[in-house]
Amino acid sequence: MIDTGSFARLLCDWCLEVAEGQQVMIVSTMLAEPLIVALHDAVLERGAWPLLRLTPPELEERFYAAAGDPQLDSFPPLELAEVGSTDAWLRVRAPANTRALAGVDPERLRRVAATRAPITEARLRKRWSATIWPTAALAQEAGMSEREYELFVERALFLDRPDPVAAWRELGEQQEELVQLLSRAREVRIEADGTDLRLRVDGRRWINSDGKRNMPSGEVFTGPLEESATGTVRFTVPTASHGVDVEGVTLTFAGGEVVAARAERGEEYLKSALATDPGARRLGELGIGTNAGIDRSTGSTLLDEKIAGTVHLALGRSYPETGGTNASALHWDLICDLRDGGGLTVDGELLDLPGFSGL
Amino acid sequence: MIDTGSFARLLCDWCLEVAEGQQVMIVSTMLAEPLIVALHDAVLERGAWPLLRLTPPELEERFYAAAGDPQLDSFPPLELAEVGSTDAWLRVRAPANTRALAGVDPERLRRVAATRAPITEARLRKRWSATIWPTAALAQEAGMSEREYELFVERALFLDRPDPVAAWRELGEQQEELVQLLSRAREVRIEADGTDLRLRVDGRRWINSDGKRNMPSGEVFTGPLEESATGTVRFTVPTASHGVDVEGVTLTFAGGEVVAARAERGEEYLKSALATDPGARRLGELGIGTNAGIDRSTGSTLLDEKIAGTVHLALGRSYPETGGTNASALHWDLICDLRDGGGLTVDGELLDLPGFSGL
Repeated sequence: MIDTGSFARLLCDWCLEVAEGQQVMIVSTMLAEPLIVALHDAVLERGAWPLLRLTPPELEERFYAAAGDPQLDSFPPLELAEVGSTDAWLRVRAPANTRALAGVDPERLRRVAATRAPITEARLRKRWSATIWPTAALAQEAGMSEREYELFVERALFLDRPDPVAAWRELGEQQEELVQLLSRAREVRIEADGTDLRLRVDGRRWINSDGKRNMPSGEVFTGPLEESATGTVRFTVPTASHGVDVEGVTLTFAGGEVVAARAERGEEYLKSALATDPGARRLGELGIGTNAGIDRSTGSTLLDEKIAGTVHLALGRSYPETGGTNASALHWDLICDLRDGGGLTVDGELLDLPGFSGL
Repeated sequence: MIDTGSFARLLCDWCLEVAEGQQVMIVSTMLAEPLIVALHDAVLERGAWPLLRLTPPELEERFYAAAGDPQLDSFPPLELAEVGSTDAWLRVRAPANTRALAGVDPERLRRVAATRAPITEARLRKRWSATIWPTAALAQEAGMSEREYELFVERALFLDRPDPVAAWRELGEQQEELVQLLSRAREVRIEADGTDLRLRVDGRRWINSDGKRNMPSGEVFTGPLEESATGTVRFTVPTASHGVDVEGVTLTFAGGEVVAARAERGEEYLKSALATDPGARRLGELGIGTNAGIDRSTGSTLLDEKIAGTVHLALGRSYPETGGTNASALHWDLICDLRDGGGLTVDGELLDLPGFSGL
């Protein structure tokens, strides 16, 4: 099994920087028990308070089955209040079934996401991190045995390195050079088979995502200018947002807005997502993956979007720290693999990065 | 397995009276998962919000191992704040090991109980209930197989009756007659082998405990006059408070205060409990058990104190609704079995109740 002590140290000291007296909220399912217990101890040892929010893994599905209209269109006030008084917040993804929400009407998912937007926004204003705990369901989604998947997660999180915190610091330093280069850029062009998309990024801030928020991370990202996206992009990595398979998405943009959208699979879900609100038809994020420990897609966006040699674009909400201004209840990352042909051009110059094959 | 739908209905409709829009906090360990899932659904179906606070069962023990001084002498502010905005609150006892705290220094337990008194007090001012979910550890404590213990719990909670809510209502009506009788009483005298204790109860309110708070219940109780307890009482039912066995406790009272205390087993724990604060040396409760579904002691105070034919006295905090004024961080129930000889005399008249053998 993964060394939970080492994992908990990485989360407390690198990701959340837990300090004395803080209230640290930890959200997960009961399946993450070994990590949760180690985190509980580690947070206490740092003089802080662990506040656990564990649920049976089947609860999200059951919520959609049992909830009536008032519950789809509101939320318990206490949930918003507690985000306000929390110092740090960690979500540990540990599903029992990655397709648990596949049968839920997308309109109900959309309603709940829109209703709960104030909670989501409040959380993003706090110190937060999101990570993953290897479960049988995630291994199955990745097409691996559980032991094989555990080893994969260890490599993705640098838990196989002698000093994981030092390894993340080092990747952060490498990414800082990339951020410096991109901060001078005006236009980014993504080219691959079926893809030619131009985005303006001048005046926006590039973020060095060094594992403090997403663990694992390994990406730099920004919010592109909201009206700049022009051209077509084909996302070659499948996603399973809320348990619905969506594959072969092609989006065409004009003036920053989606003007044509199709999917080889899951097109209904795609259309419903685009209809969430006006901001859902615009891009909130452009990211470039740099994590060499993640060598294949496993059906989990949190990891797939970090693969060295991929870029990703998110429909919907932008992260305010990038200078992006797109508002939406949606934030849906779609990934374009450039490892087997394709490239990123910055103001006419091809980026030379590990993993990217070039044009 | 216990019918979790029927159990959840009893808790929602009889105990907590869950109403639309309420926030209902549910505190337990992960071992109670089947009941928690049923409760989650039942609370939602009543238009209310379930707020789950589930922990790995080993966490309480680990808290005492990992906590430093600041954590023993304070609590996370969010925990007090959330009690304030909760409408109803349910604790489901579901331990993995009833002796998990046996090795913890009683002084540390005392410190934490004293520190957290404001949270405890705030909870008691809310609508609250406490119940039990049969685990292997509770069956072991009771000396039963798991299946045998489940059947025992079903009988104790009237879940074996065609209509559990109606059965509790009926017991409540029978208890109401006893409350009427006791409300006119001035003195209660408990007599048994080694026991002769007199308590004044005039001016105090007797409470009809009909399962709305403790589930199972089946008792009537009051707070005796704080300076009235006089004489000696021998508690014949063992307790395992915080996992420490305490047996054969004999307490002698003068002017309401414990003036001599000994235990055949666990005397150190007893002395430490009495030293919690000044209120810990006085009685906060006198209760009379009436539950005929509980036919033997099983090492769980919540159930043992309800056995028809027993009386119990609590050292420490009184319930304000009785008119009792004793303040303490302690509330420790000790039980005296009168089924095999002994009786309760009210103003000189022997009470004739089911289970009591008489003098």
